[in-house]
Amino acid sequence: MSDITPQHHGVRVGFAGMGTMGAFMAANLVRAGFALTVWNRTPGRAADLLELGAHEAASPKELAQLSDIVVTCLTDTPQVNDVLFGEHGLAEGLVAGSLFIDCSTISPLSAQEIANRLSELGVTMLDAPVSGGSEGARLGTLSIMVGGDQVDVERARPVLDAMGSTVTHLGAVGSGQWAKAINQVILAGVYLGVAEGITLGLKAGLDVERVVGALVGGAAASWVLTNRSGNMINDEYPLGFKIALHRKDLGIGLALAEKVGAVLPITAIAATFEDGLASQGHGDDDISALARPIRRLSGL
Amino acid sequence: MSDITPQHHGVRVGFAGMGTMGAFMAANLVRAGFALTVWNRTPGRAADLLELGAHEAASPKELAQLSDIVVTCLTDTPQVNDVLFGEHGLAEGLVAGSLFIDCSTISPLSAQEIANRLSELGVTMLDAPVSGGSEGARLGTLSIMVGGDQVDVERARPVLDAMGSTVTHLGAVGSGQWAKAINQVILAGVYLGVAEGITLGLKAGLDVERVVGALVGGAAASWVLTNRSGNMINDEYPLGFKIALHRKDLGIGLALAEKVGAVLPITAIAATFEDGLASQGHGDDDISALARPIRRLSGL
Amino acid sequence: MSDITPQHHGVRVGFAGMGTMGAFMAANLVRAGFALTVWNRTPGRAADLLELGAHEAASPKELAQLSDIVVTCLTDTPQVNDVLFGEHGLAEGLVAGSLFIDCSTISPLSAQEIANRLSELGVTMLDAPVSGGSEGARLGTLSIMVGGDQVDVERARPVLDAMGSTVTHLGAVGSGQWAKAINQVILAGVYLGVAEGITLGLKAGLDVERVVGALVGGAAASWVLTNRSGNMINDEYPLGFKIALHRKDLGIGLALAEKVGAVLPITAIAATFEDGLASQGHGDDDISALARPIRRLSGL
Amino acid sequence: MSDITPQHHGVRVGFAGMGTMGAFMAANLVRAGFALTVWNRTPGRAADLLELGAHEAASPKELAQLSDIVVTCLTDTPQVNDVLFGEHGLAEGLVAGSLFIDCSTISPLSAQEIANRLSELGVTMLDAPVSGGSEGARLGTLSIMVGGDQVDVERARPVLDAMGSTVTHLGAVGSGQWAKAINQVILAGVYLGVAEGITLGLKAGLDVERVVGALVGGAAASWVLTNRSGNMINDEYPLGFKIALHRKDLGIGLALAEKVGAVLPITAIAATFEDGLASQGHGDDDISALARPIRRLSGL
Repeated sequence: MSDITPQHHGVRVGFAGMGTMGAFMAANLVRAGFALTVWNRTPGRAADLLELGAHEAASPKELAQLSDIVVTCLTDTPQVNDVLFGEHGLAEGLVAGSLFIDCSTISPLSAQEIANRLSELGVTMLDAPVSGGSEGARLGTLSIMVGGDQVDVERARPVLDAMGSTVTHLGAVGSGQWAKAINQVILAGVYLGVAEGITLGLKAGLDVERVVGALVGGAAASWVLTNRSGNMINDEYPLGFKIALHRKDLGIGLALAEKVGAVLPITAIAATFEDGLASQGHGDDDISALARPIRRLSGL
Repeated sequence: MSDITPQHHGVRVGFAGMGTMGAFMAANLVRAGFALTVWNRTPGRAADLLELGAHEAASPKELAQLSDIVVTCLTDTPQVNDVLFGEHGLAEGLVAGSLFIDCSTISPLSAQEIANRLSELGVTMLDAPVSGGSEGARLGTLSIMVGGDQVDVERARPVLDAMGSTVTHLGAVGSGQWAKAINQVILAGVYLGVAEGITLGLKAGLDVERVVGALVGGAAASWVLTNRSGNMINDEYPLGFKIALHRKDLGIGLALAEKVGAVLPITAIAATFEDGLASQGHGDDDISALARPIRRLSGL
Repeated sequence: MSDITPQHHGVRVGFAGMGTMGAFMAANLVRAGFALTVWNRTPGRAADLLELGAHEAASPKELAQLSDIVVTCLTDTPQVNDVLFGEHGLAEGLVAGSLFIDCSTISPLSAQEIANRLSELGVTMLDAPVSGGSEGARLGTLSIMVGGDQVDVERARPVLDAMGSTVTHLGAVGSGQWAKAINQVILAGVYLGVAEGITLGLKAGLDVERVVGALVGGAAASWVLTNRSGNMINDEYPLGFKIALHRKDLGIGLALAEKVGAVLPITAIAATFEDGLASQGHGDDDISALARPIRRLSGL
Repeated sequence: MSDITPQHHGVRVGFAGMGTMGAFMAANLVRAGFALTVWNRTPGRAADLLELGAHEAASPKELAQLSDIVVTCLTDTPQVNDVLFGEHGLAEGLVAGSLFIDCSTISPLSAQEIANRLSELGVTMLDAPVSGGSEGARLGTLSIMVGGDQVDVERARPVLDAMGSTVTHLGAVGSGQWAKAINQVILAGVYLGVAEGITLGLKAGLDVERVVGALVGGAAASWVLTNRSGNMINDEYPLGFKIALHRKDLGIGLALAEKVGAVLPITAIAATFEDGLASQGHGDDDISALARPIRRLSGL
């Protein structure tokens, strides 16, 4: 996001979904100079945005009618389908030539189904799930994984660049969601690996923070080790990315794995660990709470 | 390692163990200006070093007699014990005031036992296992994890700085080895996590290199993802760090875990996977060959 | 099943689903003296039964109209829902006072939903999943796990006794399916445990059949060790119970576990192993093919 | 063990190791009519046996001098080596033609080494580890897995038959220990499988004892399900076979697996779970305490 605010006079952007991520992403669109209309199911979430100059639509349908490009950032496939195809949904307002960008994390198979339905209306679609957490959303430094036609990616680029610092076009519709699923699968192993190392150090009575300091420059380095090992050491997991949402994403990953025949034992273990955490009231903890089961098994 | 070569006229350094790592580390000591004597069990490995100006000792005992500080970089505890306490071993040449630095990766418990035996001779010891691979050894950019008394660390610092770019003092003797064990435990999870993500992508027919490119800037980022996912994609694992050596280190980690009561399921799975790899002739592959079992399970 | 054939003149039984299991179960109902009407989606599967004296209905609706008690043995929840509530489905023919017995393996939550819908018609339901394989179905020695009201279990007992040798009433509707899910979860661990033992013996070059002979009388004894270790030794898995069906059942178990917060790491590993097997063309193998991934990992 | 007590006048048997198992096994030898001499490191453990008519030796050496066949039932390899080859050990009293039977559970590789050393003295050996717990030892219903030469097995058979009800000759020296290791590996999977099923049932609020009753006749049947699921339901694990001993045996199994290249992920998980249990003070619980980690992970 540039310090100099460009003006994208000609492009009307709509944004549906003022959750933690969406509100920050929408704010960055306003700051980037887009004429923005927003909508959220629960009213009152858009107050800050209206102050920044955004307008509010009464329904997804109206949001679509007022926009050339519509962005959604929602929780799951049923929500995306409802906002698109429910009563007064986006689909009633989108017209041939509209571009739909879905930043939600859903299955690539669902993304392809949605793209097929929209193509009947002459509407094109990009799947564009994001990574980087609420901090990345706020700072506009998200990593955005994009699937869709090249021409649509070019058209969307100013919008995507306003929300993220790394925009990667991965292939046809759905390939952004595939990349996101892979991201979540990899995280399962990294979090559990770091959790085991931290737990070994804690049980040994070491100064584990100093150990982490010695390791972050070597082959065991990871974003998780640098940024989340502190949570694991302190056994406190303030929100970054919710366990419950990661579990949902692992569900997507495991279903994809079943479909294509990938065998993912570590991911499978992480998923069942997360089921236990969610059931025990820790679903809203940060994903680094995957250290809990390793700590508990070890008597910590 | 500075570009300007300092001269450490007063400090005579001995180095035992001219393996892949040791030969590079010793060369950096010569380049840093230390008067270096070397020894290796198998003769002829020190030719390059002699050209650089190092001398060769006829036995570990002679090496110790010619040195104020002796560094070893050997394979395992039996080797270290043999070079130290075997016939014509270092212990026969070390004198009160000598400093022994062991850069091998062994159990912290063994390190403490060795330190206790040496203290009877008035010899102090640092355990100083390294991370960073043969490339780090060559470039002098190793990460060195050091356990021992502060005064010994200060005395050893010019030597350590000549071999590595990050030197971390972690506590009493053995704590360097604890940190190294934790490093290896963490790697198990990271490698398996990346392997599962890569395998999912390959089974889906994605351009996985492009996917990796999209992920290396986000929360799933790791040294392994950046530097070893290519091996996993190509199913070729040219040497970086040998599976067989990582398996030895996981054996140390699992024995420590048993002792302190840390429960490490992912590490345990990695260790048994590595047993299979070693048995099937892949023990000399790079550790990224942990992708093999995940690929094979998935029919790749 | 008694040798003396009783005559249940007054009770008209309908049976939908002439699969491997259902055909044998229905035949035992005819032999037990029930007036039986059958229906199968794919025609021609009931020929043997018609010879035995059964009648064939043109639709599930007609089947229900001709029966006091209707039994189904189908593949999954969508099939059960379709046969019940699809066009010309059972629900159109069932009347107040009819008893519906579902021997399919589906989720207990689905069973409860179906029971609720049927109760609006005055129809009561038992969930009655079975265990014992095609051999048990043929011999009438199935173990039947029954959920529902006591009065309905009593009414159904002659029917259930004709199909199985062990009929256990576990509680309210759904509890039969819970027991079946637990059965399948336990099997995952038993199969993998036996597979690991067999593989260790094979790698050691032992006469593993003799080893099994020494173990079947001790603490490691199990039905699987006695009856399926031979498959694992020979690496041939002729059909008993299909991997693909067990995978479906583990999907039910893992979904239940997620709901109630049970953490099932071994089951999760078995499920992902089975995904790989199914993808590699082994979905129709017997469940003992869970030995394949352990063997393959071990280079066999 | 026959009701009619035979008299084995000509055969003098020695027994070293009056632990829980050994004391019962020795008593059965006396009852079977053998002239028995016993020895135990800790004095006073043989009082009951002396009342039954056994004699006590002052040392293993004396025990050997007074016996044609010597049986040991000890904890681990160091103990066996010490009783055999330590000062005043059995080896000092054994003579050419003596037969040594080791009922301890040790590595098959150690058994072979011991047999090799004894063969230099003209002493032959059988490895004969047992399964069946203290109850089996008391009742003489142990399963005994025997490795060694056929002629020695025949010579030993009256002795073995007095202690166990199933005696299986598996091959050369060491093969009894291989079978025992496989037994312990299989148990790991069976216990974890049953633990997962029980935990799922408990979390669902089922009457799990009734569920177990429905399953013990089917494919999920096992000795563990019948005999140890009650412990798991009650979360109480009174002694049958100690977790700490099973962990030792899994250590043997995993070391063998490493040697022959068998990949045993479930066993590896069980071993690390047992490390945690031992560290948390549960090492003396029955092995069914493997349910603890599954229960704890699930919040029970």
